[in-house]
Amino acid sequence: MHPFARRAAASVSRLGEERLIAAIRRWLGSASPRAPFGIGDDCAVLPGGRGRQLITVDPVIYGRHFDDTVAPRDVGAKLLKRNLSDLAAMGGRPTAAVLALTLDARVSVKWLEQFYRGLGACARRYRVAVVGGDVAQADGVVAASLTLLGATTGRRVLTRTGAKVGDFIYVTGLLGRSLATGHHHRFSPRLNEGAWLARQPAVRAMMDVSDGLAKDLHALTPSRAIPALSAAALPRRAGATMRNALTDGEDYELVFAVAASADRDAFARTWGRAFPRTGLSCIGRFVPAGKLPADAINLAEFHGYEHLRRTPR
Amino acid sequence: MHPFARRAAASVSRLGEERLIAAIRRWLGSASPRAPFGIGDDCAVLPGGRGRQLITVDPVIYGRHFDDTVAPRDVGAKLLKRNLSDLAAMGGRPTAAVLALTLDARVSVKWLEQFYRGLGACARRYRVAVVGGDVAQADGVVAASLTLLGATTGRRVLTRTGAKVGDFIYVTGLLGRSLATGHHHRFSPRLNEGAWLARQPAVRAMMDVSDGLAKDLHALTPSRAIPALSAAALPRRAGATMRNALTDGEDYELVFAVAASADRDAFARTWGRAFPRTGLSCIGRFVPAGKLPADAINLAEFHGYEHLRRTPR
Repeated sequence: MHPFARRAAASVSRLGEERLIAAIRRWLGSASPRAPFGIGDDCAVLPGGRGRQLITVDPVIYGRHFDDTVAPRDVGAKLLKRNLSDLAAMGGRPTAAVLALTLDARVSVKWLEQFYRGLGACARRYRVAVVGGDVAQADGVVAASLTLLGATTGRRVLTRTGAKVGDFIYVTGLLGRSLATGHHHRFSPRLNEGAWLARQPAVRAMMDVSDGLAKDLHALTPSRAIPALSAAALPRRAGATMRNALTDGEDYELVFAVAASADRDAFARTWGRAFPRTGLSCIGRFVPAGKLPADAINLAEFHGYEHLRRTPR
Repeated sequence: MHPFARRAAASVSRLGEERLIAAIRRWLGSASPRAPFGIGDDCAVLPGGRGRQLITVDPVIYGRHFDDTVAPRDVGAKLLKRNLSDLAAMGGRPTAAVLALTLDARVSVKWLEQFYRGLGACARRYRVAVVGGDVAQADGVVAASLTLLGATTGRRVLTRTGAKVGDFIYVTGLLGRSLATGHHHRFSPRLNEGAWLARQPAVRAMMDVSDGLAKDLHALTPSRAIPALSAAALPRRAGATMRNALTDGEDYELVFAVAASADRDAFARTWGRAFPRTGLSCIGRFVPAGKLPADAINLAEFHGYEHLRRTPR
């Protein structure tokens, strides 16, 4: 059976990511456990063993996540850091990684060496053991997929579910213009911040912002609620418009929900002492669906990066 | 930096797989632990936890590991079974898997559904939880990379190292013509056999045959030794020549070394009772380098499948 659809309507690009993931879970049947033990969060929690082990997988692909303007050392580091960001979003610490490379035979040794050196340096910095991998050939492809294992740092695994109507929405750092500024490969994954947040009872749910806040925030939003965001509160990178901040993607920041009952002044003070160099912004809160305040951003007008749709970024 | 080399001499294809792996370990530096805790065996042993956890990664790529003649259900199953074969080679049992897909946007939903259904059915059969994954887009590519986690079944992890000069060489099942006969996607990974062999003290080292016996056997061969194989003893699939059996690849059988002091008759009898439907062949032994008997196969005349070399299969 030929893998390409003859009609565009029958192609996977028409499905969109959310329906694709739902379909994948359906197709896998009982082989796909419920999140956090399976598909549906930034990492999957592995049952058994001492503590709980986390696992996540993310690729970098030439022409998609990097191009000729990115030094191969930075490509290798980015590959690991993308996965570290997923681990941070659940409050985990990395342990080990395996790497699957798919390469056109024309890839230069020099490029590959620099790629691995960058990955190796980043792995040492974050104490990740690169424990295995595979290299396969495919014409015209330069792609690397890294599977990262980690462990929980405290008693709790902070997942995407758990936010309630009335919870305040916080985000770390700055949003927007990640590709234009090089942030997409220079960022530092928020591992310390994520581990700290997982220990705060007031924090109810968390994820990382990788496809643009407007899109990612859906997964954090409780049912029968919508996010009411303040345009003025959005922490924007220099030169970023509101649209940039909401839809550019590759921010690799943490977005999380804080209980309405929390002492938010004390929370902000403690944060400031723990992470004096990481910005923290309260950007809005979850309100009942249909009750969006007039001054809140209408997120329906914004879309983040959709995988497998042929849209300009 | 452009990933493609301008001169063919500077391309990764000129390196060959062995030198590439050696280079990767060098480039990774201390981020790459020694086997079995890192690169260099069928699986990597993860330290810590109850028992020892195993991890391995292998892809299937359109045009490389499957084509239009293979049903997508079989492609999904093959992807998992390739990894299960690596786990079998260390005496492990599977636990969980994550999957990274790279797809051209034109891939049909139908193809993908069948792929996942096949993977799901196979995962249920072998009790593997598919705990996560990623889907990314790249033009002209249909590739899937699966990372499989497992656990040791006994006290011992059977690695590729440990064979000694004088040890006998055994192989399970039949070799050769895997692509021509469909064995490459119909095979059953030797999980039960691998777990059993790992419990036999007489078995000193083991690996799976995936790139052709002539190539794979190098990794099992003790230093200052060579394998002396008997052409008559090679278990060949119907229609397979000796060259087919030695170089075709995708056999997914186990090859292992048995101590010269072992009671091989008793070993064969016990095997026959445990696995009446899995063939077992003693195909030769390791002899001192330079002392190849006149009637032994000269393996230097045969090469298995070399990754990243542009050779016809």
